[in-house]
Amino acid sequence: MKIPEILLIESEHKPGSLARILSVLGDAGLVVEHLAAVRREQGRTVWEITVDMDEEADWGVFDRVDALPNARVLGKSDRVFNRHRGGKIRTVSSQEIASQQILRDLYTPGVARVCLAIRDDPEKAWDFTNIGNTVAIVTDGSAVLGLGNIGPLPGLPVMEGKAALFATLAGISGVPILVDAKDPASIIETVVAIAPSFGAIQLEDIGAPACFQVESELTARLDKPVLHDDQHGTAVVTLAAVRNAGRISGQRLSQSLVGQVGLGAAGYGIARLLFARGASRILGADLDPSAVARFEELGGEASNLERIMAEAEIVIATTGVRGLIKPEMVRPGQVILALTNPDPEIEPATARDAGAVFAADGKSINNVLGFPGLFRGALDARARRFTDAMLLAAAEAIADTADESDLVPDALDLAVHQAVAEAVKAAAAD
Amino acid sequence: MKIPEILLIESEHKPGSLARILSVLGDAGLVVEHLAAVRREQGRTVWEITVDMDEEADWGVFDRVDALPNARVLGKSDRVFNRHRGGKIRTVSSQEIASQQILRDLYTPGVARVCLAIRDDPEKAWDFTNIGNTVAIVTDGSAVLGLGNIGPLPGLPVMEGKAALFATLAGISGVPILVDAKDPASIIETVVAIAPSFGAIQLEDIGAPACFQVESELTARLDKPVLHDDQHGTAVVTLAAVRNAGRISGQRLSQSLVGQVGLGAAGYGIARLLFARGASRILGADLDPSAVARFEELGGEASNLERIMAEAEIVIATTGVRGLIKPEMVRPGQVILALTNPDPEIEPATARDAGAVFAADGKSINNVLGFPGLFRGALDARARRFTDAMLLAAAEAIADTADESDLVPDALDLAVHQAVAEAVKAAAAD
Repeated sequence: MKIPEILLIESEHKPGSLARILSVLGDAGLVVEHLAAVRREQGRTVWEITVDMDEEADWGVFDRVDALPNARVLGKSDRVFNRHRGGKIRTVSSQEIASQQILRDLYTPGVARVCLAIRDDPEKAWDFTNIGNTVAIVTDGSAVLGLGNIGPLPGLPVMEGKAALFATLAGISGVPILVDAKDPASIIETVVAIAPSFGAIQLEDIGAPACFQVESELTARLDKPVLHDDQHGTAVVTLAAVRNAGRISGQRLSQSLVGQVGLGAAGYGIARLLFARGASRILGADLDPSAVARFEELGGEASNLERIMAEAEIVIATTGVRGLIKPEMVRPGQVILALTNPDPEIEPATARDAGAVFAADGKSINNVLGFPGLFRGALDARARRFTDAMLLAAAEAIADTADESDLVPDALDLAVHQAVAEAVKAAAAD
Repeated sequence: MKIPEILLIESEHKPGSLARILSVLGDAGLVVEHLAAVRREQGRTVWEITVDMDEEADWGVFDRVDALPNARVLGKSDRVFNRHRGGKIRTVSSQEIASQQILRDLYTPGVARVCLAIRDDPEKAWDFTNIGNTVAIVTDGSAVLGLGNIGPLPGLPVMEGKAALFATLAGISGVPILVDAKDPASIIETVVAIAPSFGAIQLEDIGAPACFQVESELTARLDKPVLHDDQHGTAVVTLAAVRNAGRISGQRLSQSLVGQVGLGAAGYGIARLLFARGASRILGADLDPSAVARFEELGGEASNLERIMAEAEIVIATTGVRGLIKPEMVRPGQVILALTNPDPEIEPATARDAGAVFAADGKSINNVLGFPGLFRGALDARARRFTDAMLLAAAEAIADTADESDLVPDALDLAVHQAVAEAVKAAAAD
């Protein structure tokens, strides 16, 4: 997979110096993702240049940059690692404990009154603790990003990232819970045992088919909202993008032929929600027969990559396979959402060049747009579960907040998450 | 049990008005715990007066206050509940996620690099996540404060209080984990399953004898520090108080006869640490024969309340029974630590009036003095377990930071917790 390499390159502070460096990178097929001047001294500038690279990349490019008359490769930047240093979240006290009296009110002996009030009426926990604001972010590390089964601890940076986004975008206290589990049953028993601690449960990066069993059993056994984000969060944001693509192109979901390449957790969740939203026909392909069988149970039609690319008006790819869709397979006028992160099945620019009317990848069609508001709304409504009505309302809210020419809005716009939360809360109340 | 009642009483803003109110309260046997003026208007003042009351209190006192010429009882204050409203902790993002580039560094795609680095070297999690700063605060709610087995959710305000103190006093991210467990084995399996999420485990308010099995098995199975605070946190702070009482009174622990009334979790932990610190003889009493047997295995001598009060030079009570020690039982010159919260076996003032040379209760001899620095030090040392050397070092540090005439220092003094953390870290390194 491609990983962002952040290079530190020094150039003379003269016209054309930077251009020559970027030309060499461009000739090697590298796209500049980010560029910043980090230092300038003695007429020389140090640039931090981010490019995505992988094992197949042209690594000789660095020697060629170094060979330029006015440039020197200093090494790699630790920017990403520095941003993770010490972790991305922390727990803070909501109140300053500045006196013995405040300590006695917040802790013993005062706290005993609050404990007894909750013993007598458990609903009071939503008033006098943070539980109504707390979401467990649960993973077994079996399907982290596109990295596969790397285990629970290596998944922690992703869970902390979710928690940092929960806090920033929706004021929610996310708690990473890494489960060292041998099978779905042990994930389920563990989450049931600790469920009293949380207002809601987000399941994250748990591989298929375990994820289906874990989610359905937890939903049945707990009286609080449980959501497998890879299925439903992704589905909500994808549906928003499909709706806006249709709005702009004039296609209607109920009259369009949809094709899904990849029917794992994300693909299944998307198909389920598209049918709930009125899709009439969805073709689906996956190498795993059990995934195809699950898809057929939803009402989908088993197909294959070639037929989907040749016939479908809306193509949604969630395969985990970078570059699976070749430009020559694109049918002119298609909407193509290639959602595998970090490397899509086809780059959006390539798809558009090949005739797609809309193309987007998982960087923009990202579940960051969905999960903060979905949980905020469910918690605010004190909902006991997520319903399709809540998911559909979230998709509508996301679609509505996008600029006219965009498929989805900016994920860092707090107004989006507030709109999603309100829509979800209203749908939960119905 | 006694619970602080916070009264709102209005008085005329005239000399003697407040004194008359307080006289009526005093005549009813109530001690004023806290008093504050909350409002003044039109020559009248509204006072918030905190007194500890219980079902046996003289509740007619309010009518007598109301009957005073210049006073009126307005009702009860919700000060404690207001301080708990919305909970006492929250998770925050350590960094401002202010741009798409920061989002891409902290979340996908940048986070993938960090996940892979931890997969290749799990120790890197201590550098690039918050795990080295994160402590699970685990309870099954079976022995919350002196309230008994009230269940996990009603225990949450206490766990949030611990987390707020962890954050305030030691910069630690505490995570309340409420376990809905039928037996010790299910607590153990649950904590083992989620242990990858945390740098250390604090066990809290788990009843005896389950707490012993849970702690010893978790210590054996996990390679991270596990501490049952009710045993060892309390023991550390008690030992500090005993040391300072001896310093002031000239008694030496190794030459003193110690008596312990109550041999549950706290009593057992105290006896264990006193022996580790060189105590030669400890008499112990408990109504539960299995608790006495555990105490005898440590080297203690089974005894009874009367004999302990008649013979012991240092008496430590952890029975959960308010008022168990009568003034006439106190032997002149005794040191008496009556630690049951919120209501001690004997009020310190009463014990001193009866001849005790030192007397203190659980409000001052409180494990708030111990646990923040104990965990800070263990985490900073990346210790794999708590050793007696670490506990003894913590007790010395607490004793050393007390003012000359006090048994223990002020729990809100950050210097105390820093000193404890440094002593524990140094002891862990040995």
